[in-house]
Amino acid sequence: MANYHNLSNEALQEKYNTLQDAYEKIASQQLQLDMTRGKPCTEQLDLSQPMLDVLTSASAVKTENGLDARNYGILDGIPEAKAFFASILDVSPEQVIVGGNSSLTMMHDSIVQFLLHGVSEDAAPWVKQGNVKFLCPSPGYDRHFAICEALGIEMIPVAMTPEGPNMDEVEKLAAADPQIKGIWCVPKYSNPDGITYTDNVVDRLATMKTAADDFRIFWDNAYTVHHLTDEPDELKDIITAASKAGNSDRVLQFASTSKVTFPGSGVSVLASSESNIAFYKKNLSIQSIGPDKLNQLRHVAFLKDKATLADHMKKHAAIIAPKFQTVLSILNEKLGGKGIADWTNPNGGYFISLNTMEGCAKQVVELAKKAGVTLTSAGATYPYGKDPYDANIRIAPTLPPIQDLKKAIDVLCLCVEMVSINHLLHK
Amino acid sequence: MANYHNLSNEALQEKYNTLQDAYEKIASQQLQLDMTRGKPCTEQLDLSQPMLDVLTSASAVKTENGLDARNYGILDGIPEAKAFFASILDVSPEQVIVGGNSSLTMMHDSIVQFLLHGVSEDAAPWVKQGNVKFLCPSPGYDRHFAICEALGIEMIPVAMTPEGPNMDEVEKLAAADPQIKGIWCVPKYSNPDGITYTDNVVDRLATMKTAADDFRIFWDNAYTVHHLTDEPDELKDIITAASKAGNSDRVLQFASTSKVTFPGSGVSVLASSESNIAFYKKNLSIQSIGPDKLNQLRHVAFLKDKATLADHMKKHAAIIAPKFQTVLSILNEKLGGKGIADWTNPNGGYFISLNTMEGCAKQVVELAKKAGVTLTSAGATYPYGKDPYDANIRIAPTLPPIQDLKKAIDVLCLCVEMVSINHLLHK
Repeated sequence: MANYHNLSNEALQEKYNTLQDAYEKIASQQLQLDMTRGKPCTEQLDLSQPMLDVLTSASAVKTENGLDARNYGILDGIPEAKAFFASILDVSPEQVIVGGNSSLTMMHDSIVQFLLHGVSEDAAPWVKQGNVKFLCPSPGYDRHFAICEALGIEMIPVAMTPEGPNMDEVEKLAAADPQIKGIWCVPKYSNPDGITYTDNVVDRLATMKTAADDFRIFWDNAYTVHHLTDEPDELKDIITAASKAGNSDRVLQFASTSKVTFPGSGVSVLASSESNIAFYKKNLSIQSIGPDKLNQLRHVAFLKDKATLADHMKKHAAIIAPKFQTVLSILNEKLGGKGIADWTNPNGGYFISLNTMEGCAKQVVELAKKAGVTLTSAGATYPYGKDPYDANIRIAPTLPPIQDLKKAIDVLCLCVEMVSINHLLHK
Repeated sequence: MANYHNLSNEALQEKYNTLQDAYEKIASQQLQLDMTRGKPCTEQLDLSQPMLDVLTSASAVKTENGLDARNYGILDGIPEAKAFFASILDVSPEQVIVGGNSSLTMMHDSIVQFLLHGVSEDAAPWVKQGNVKFLCPSPGYDRHFAICEALGIEMIPVAMTPEGPNMDEVEKLAAADPQIKGIWCVPKYSNPDGITYTDNVVDRLATMKTAADDFRIFWDNAYTVHHLTDEPDELKDIITAASKAGNSDRVLQFASTSKVTFPGSGVSVLASSESNIAFYKKNLSIQSIGPDKLNQLRHVAFLKDKATLADHMKKHAAIIAPKFQTVLSILNEKLGGKGIADWTNPNGGYFISLNTMEGCAKQVVELAKKAGVTLTSAGATYPYGKDPYDANIRIAPTLPPIQDLKKAIDVLCLCVEMVSINHLLHK
């Protein structure tokens, strides 16, 4: 396939005309394909349907320490749920709080606690420390950035590399500015790039000097067990690494079963140092009498242990890996070798990250939308919705049936080609 | 029964000696009776056991508008849950957000929103308005007061009367001080007094002048359907009253199914003006992707409608009303006519409020604890845990089996008598 950068304007124009004909045909079909969010598909949801059926006997509603899970009591999660998540995250049950249906809520609430109360008993509330800033490896997760924006926390973008955030940048910024109080990380199969941080990146995050002594790493390990291959990525345990470096309170690790069982009806978890857990629990005691323990029981009864969970996740992979392959093969077929886009090939997670030439992403998303294919807004993966390169598009392959997915990616590729050629013709 | 105020010191001392003998016998039994919280008993929880069994077919997990409740989507509650709670609270579905498992969390989060963002788009955040104060009708609910204390909101106690809060006080304070931003109300079967606010009190709250134009009423209608008799109290609809008075944004009404189905695994609801709901929803969108929709479906499938809910609540009453009667008859038998205590006889809710002579409650609770009966701390029903009269003791009759309840109240009465006599002897 010819690299478009080497083609004459005439050849480009000819291609454009052909593409435009194809586009108009597709646009006339009035497609309605929604690719905006990383949602599991119906077949994935069906995998956990038996979980709705595990608490039907009276004995099934008792926790392992004999409490009636239907009543009040237990703020930090039932013991078997704490043990389950501790085993998944390689921490002790004392380092875990098992919460409600959303790890996003736990992250939000952690930041609100830090704003209003500080990061610990002795620390000053962030609201009393002037302008608070967060480092935001980008592209990243739009809902992380939305929390900062809503709470008035200034976001400083940091480039992502294939190894994780650009650590030279991170270290320099964190060491220089005491107003930088935190960093957002999706360390495994990152959203949207699918990158797993290298051991070196994890170690540097765990050990780096920070000007703020109340600096916190928000370690959103959302995709820790969400592999797409039989040779999954390994992520170094940052809690142990930070603890060894004398920074045991630096890391708050979050995870959930939203994409394991049911989004919205899953279980969330926070893992951290015992002192951070105690402080979170103290604040939580004001906000809640306790989590939904019946749903925690359901999860433990259904997911059982690390091995059963791994088997369950393989069933997810069997459903969604072919969807990722479909996207990748269309991208390769339609855009490969043309010098107008590159994309990731992740070993896990929920996204493929597509990068157009600079200045093209917004137009691509608009053009696709006109043809009935709704993508995540261009820019959404950057703080304040502003991609400085206007290049990144997040593809979420899991939800649509494979025929719809093919159509949507065909349209996407068509749009990338058209916008790119237009760009080359007018530069 | 002789009024103890009329007895000679010798007669009192003789009584005391007899009571002390009885106390020592009971103390030697090493009872372990926990009366601290208003928890449903096992028989009550069993009433809702069938709810765990309603979502076992694939069709049962669809919402009435055809969405798969197992997946992401819907921030403010599924349509059938909004309609259900709207009918219970006499508002329109557009005035309702159906949330997660805790109305306490919704109240806490509302206050946090007001602190950080203000009460509306145009309002200044409370954290930027200096010292924020709340009116706290007392005795009241300790967890309301704990939220204020944790968030640094100054609490101003206001006396409760048999009609509701002392409205002369409330109106005077609210009109005079713009730093007073809110009031806590449990308007029906109040915690702990079991008082239902009169129409006049509701109207005065809805129409009063407030110096703060961002004043909010936190209307915790926790016990709205929790009747103990066939002739339940009626509470005037404050949302309509406030709206008619031009104060449509003044009231935030909260309720939950915690004591209808399962505490911790229930569903919470916020009802307010449409503009308040829109603002809450905007803030909520940063904190959460959505509530547990499967649990909302479970509730609607099980509780169905207003009439089915009312039948269900009658089953609760059949279990707990005899426990209230047991407490009342022991109090009457042991303490009646002695001039040392009075107590409430509520038509609903979860508590009986016992008032000792001034300066006695703490000692009573301590003495009972030594005999193995743990009561809610004396003072807990007042802001900062400080009952200025040291008189109020909250009795929670629902949880213990009736035999245990009898023992516990026997001990309590014994302790009230002993402490009262001691008080009379040394005054």
